[in-house]
Amino acid sequence: MGMTTSTRRPQAAATTALLAVVVDRAAPETLGRQLYLRIRELILAGRLAAGERLPSTRRLAEDLGVSRTVPLAAYDQLAAEGYIDARRGSGQYVRALDGTVRPTARRAAPAPAAAQEPLAPALRGQPFDPDAAAAALFPAREWARMMARGWRRDGAAAIGPDQWSGLRSLRAAIAGHVRALQGLDVTAEQVAVTAGVGDALQLIARALVPRGAEVWVEDPGHIGARHALAREGLRVVPVPVDAEGIDVAAGRWLAPHARLALVTPQRQFPSGAPLSLPRRIALIDWARQAGAVVVADDYDSELRFSGRPMAALSSLDPGQAVLSVGSFSKLTFPGLRLGYVVGPQALIARLAQARAREGAPVAMGAQPAMAEFISGGGFARHLRALRRQMGQRRQALAAALAARLGEAVAILPQDVGMHLTIALREGAAGGMSDVEVAALGAARGLNLDPLSSHGAASPAPQGFLLGYAGWDEQRLAAGVETLARLLADCARGAVRLRPCVDAQAAG
Amino acid sequence: MGMTTSTRRPQAAATTALLAVVVDRAAPETLGRQLYLRIRELILAGRLAAGERLPSTRRLAEDLGVSRTVPLAAYDQLAAEGYIDARRGSGQYVRALDGTVRPTARRAAPAPAAAQEPLAPALRGQPFDPDAAAAALFPAREWARMMARGWRRDGAAAIGPDQWSGLRSLRAAIAGHVRALQGLDVTAEQVAVTAGVGDALQLIARALVPRGAEVWVEDPGHIGARHALAREGLRVVPVPVDAEGIDVAAGRWLAPHARLALVTPQRQFPSGAPLSLPRRIALIDWARQAGAVVVADDYDSELRFSGRPMAALSSLDPGQAVLSVGSFSKLTFPGLRLGYVVGPQALIARLAQARAREGAPVAMGAQPAMAEFISGGGFARHLRALRRQMGQRRQALAAALAARLGEAVAILPQDVGMHLTIALREGAAGGMSDVEVAALGAARGLNLDPLSSHGAASPAPQGFLLGYAGWDEQRLAAGVETLARLLADCARGAVRLRPCVDAQAAG
Repeated sequence: MGMTTSTRRPQAAATTALLAVVVDRAAPETLGRQLYLRIRELILAGRLAAGERLPSTRRLAEDLGVSRTVPLAAYDQLAAEGYIDARRGSGQYVRALDGTVRPTARRAAPAPAAAQEPLAPALRGQPFDPDAAAAALFPAREWARMMARGWRRDGAAAIGPDQWSGLRSLRAAIAGHVRALQGLDVTAEQVAVTAGVGDALQLIARALVPRGAEVWVEDPGHIGARHALAREGLRVVPVPVDAEGIDVAAGRWLAPHARLALVTPQRQFPSGAPLSLPRRIALIDWARQAGAVVVADDYDSELRFSGRPMAALSSLDPGQAVLSVGSFSKLTFPGLRLGYVVGPQALIARLAQARAREGAPVAMGAQPAMAEFISGGGFARHLRALRRQMGQRRQALAAALAARLGEAVAILPQDVGMHLTIALREGAAGGMSDVEVAALGAARGLNLDPLSSHGAASPAPQGFLLGYAGWDEQRLAAGVETLARLLADCARGAVRLRPCVDAQAAG
Repeated sequence: MGMTTSTRRPQAAATTALLAVVVDRAAPETLGRQLYLRIRELILAGRLAAGERLPSTRRLAEDLGVSRTVPLAAYDQLAAEGYIDARRGSGQYVRALDGTVRPTARRAAPAPAAAQEPLAPALRGQPFDPDAAAAALFPAREWARMMARGWRRDGAAAIGPDQWSGLRSLRAAIAGHVRALQGLDVTAEQVAVTAGVGDALQLIARALVPRGAEVWVEDPGHIGARHALAREGLRVVPVPVDAEGIDVAAGRWLAPHARLALVTPQRQFPSGAPLSLPRRIALIDWARQAGAVVVADDYDSELRFSGRPMAALSSLDPGQAVLSVGSFSKLTFPGLRLGYVVGPQALIARLAQARAREGAPVAMGAQPAMAEFISGGGFARHLRALRRQMGQRRQALAAALAARLGEAVAILPQDVGMHLTIALREGAAGGMSDVEVAALGAARGLNLDPLSSHGAASPAPQGFLLGYAGWDEQRLAAGVETLARLLADCARGAVRLRPCVDAQAAG
């Protein structure tokens, strides 16, 4: 049976996904094989969906700057293994496979339904979902009181017009929070309330960056942030990251005239390394020359367990071009949807002007309560409790990993946050990729976030981001046990990806 | 002095704006003049910004399906009048003009700073801003009590996970509201809470429409909705509107395989005409054949002053493909940011799946309170008060217009809502376009929304959307007086657009 789906999605989506593919002439594998591997990963990760048309070999060769034999070889291999359906004259399409077909590849077959997006809905909230928040710890009754008090006090302002930078009392409260966190002298005028980091990035893009301009993002880095910037019509340039953080020299070479750089200076996402001082200086220098804005996302910095944070990036910024973004939703509950941008007053004013032009303020519902929660000390109390509990969970997870998977994985060093990043040692999954292991994990109730899915470059580092915020110590240990068995099964070739996993897709 | 700006924006933005241009071979004016007029309007409206590069004449000719002499003639005229800067070999750029240059055109010159976006922030809240809400009527104290009560009752659910369709109690309350409004039997499972109509459209686009697919929008129609769909990667096809609403036959001809149609069946925006029954049937028929989703935006239907509404479009829908969208923000206060999608349960479930994949629920802050406000009857009471006051303001505005501008404008018939649409009679502004009059009005503190800015086709109808929600009867009468003097000054050639209006841009 022909197994291509009936919906033909246009070529644009596939082209966009493939734009992120990089082939490396210095790598030991042939360019054709590199391309084959990258496209296969995109298919397995669901980033190229069933029915999508791939770019022509001619076009792909042009985009990658390689000879046409390279995509021809890659497509031939993908077609031979059943990942794509190549028909002369009419193009190549990603295949959808069902139970009646077996791929001809020896090892892996796509599981399109379950892996279609970063996360199947049914697995949200399962270990080790890094987006799970510690909502169970959140003081619900105190929050309800904050809602009542905040709206009594600030209701007139909250209902009124011109709240383009957010509720004044919340801006003042956030300024105090950031002063305490980063040791910077910040006033309410330097704060804009946002609906979270994604909203902040999109607002910054619309207000401060010319449409179509290039922007630096870390590679590997946060895939959601990359998408948020791309959605605003910016040309995202992945800049490699090493042990010192983003490689500024590489960025200057790849996109010297970029207009924005998004970095995670306190703790690079997902590697965990802080941005070194020489790199910070180089980054600020470049930004000044290029007239670029630097956006620092010190995510999870409220949850530092040990060591001292480096001074905020903006403390090095004589040119007034550094903005810090942050979110409160992961620290409270998922429906809060509040965050902030902090930076020079002139830039914050331009953000407000953009909001005013668009006519859509940030939802006001929780702003009065959050202002009360922060300024009354409730938020700081909650963070202390959260830090204590997160520290315990983090230790429990690290201990279970060391005991059960010490041979197979390495825990990357990090002292902040709500997840651990582990790297798979060579052969730990019997040659399966982290994306493939994650697809198998889904069948066992594990939500595994593959490290390689955060990178645009090839070869991608192999491993997982393991969130621990949402589960107690027993649950985390059980999750590690499941992961250990899964990896052992992979290593001895006892499991294979099955073509269709409808049971999960239905969840 | 050379007055092009130093920032060269890429060609993509200009190309996108020009894609909406249509030339009409049956029109009395030459194609070259039509094109010149449309591009000039885009520049005056700020939709082509200073420094933007225009497509080459060859490319534009291809896109429009005309001979290359057509864009050549248009560009020559625009260059002669100082709107664009044409340099041999390097392309054509939109000019920025400042106080030191006067355009060579006799009548109009662009005012880029003030007109750069639909609305200069300083004029938000000035008459006759159609987006102004009647927040002054909103019962702030009652709302603060609803906040306290709602969070006491529903706090645990609101903080909890998996609120992808919104808070259960709010979904149930909205179902009741829609039942009362549209006479349809709707259950909570058929409701998804959204952050407003824009959010609803984007969610529907992502969840139900293949990326890159064509979608029908009304022309003229809501420009914000058009942008929302285009931002999701859909190809927006403007379908002409006549006295019966959207021209389904034209839509079938322009884009037979579109996957979504966005319509305003109760009262077409901005013309005010309801979608006729034959058209409704034709629309539903087409949607069934094409496998398309129909999205009905019965905006402002809570504010009907007279007449009976037609049955909801979905009552004609045996194929379960009609979704209704609505917003509460304009009926309450701008920071509420809550709205809904109502439709077949299977489609609503797919919307929830998309939210879950994206991991971002609608902000929860106001949901418990809105549930209380609706289900406790407070919202209905507020709507009655609002309808009474809006009716008075509408009458006051209509009376002032008739008394002062009866010769110059015609009020389009409509019996719902928070704005009146007026058409400029021939010569009422001395040959100036509505966009030009609006730019002049800004200097006199008037926020005029030009009717032609809602249309993609040429020739655009000339007139204004006059909101009346935000001002009392004296203020509205004073606004009409200002408008009348402005039009009179335009008609006798006593005013001209000045090249630069920095004073307003700084506001």
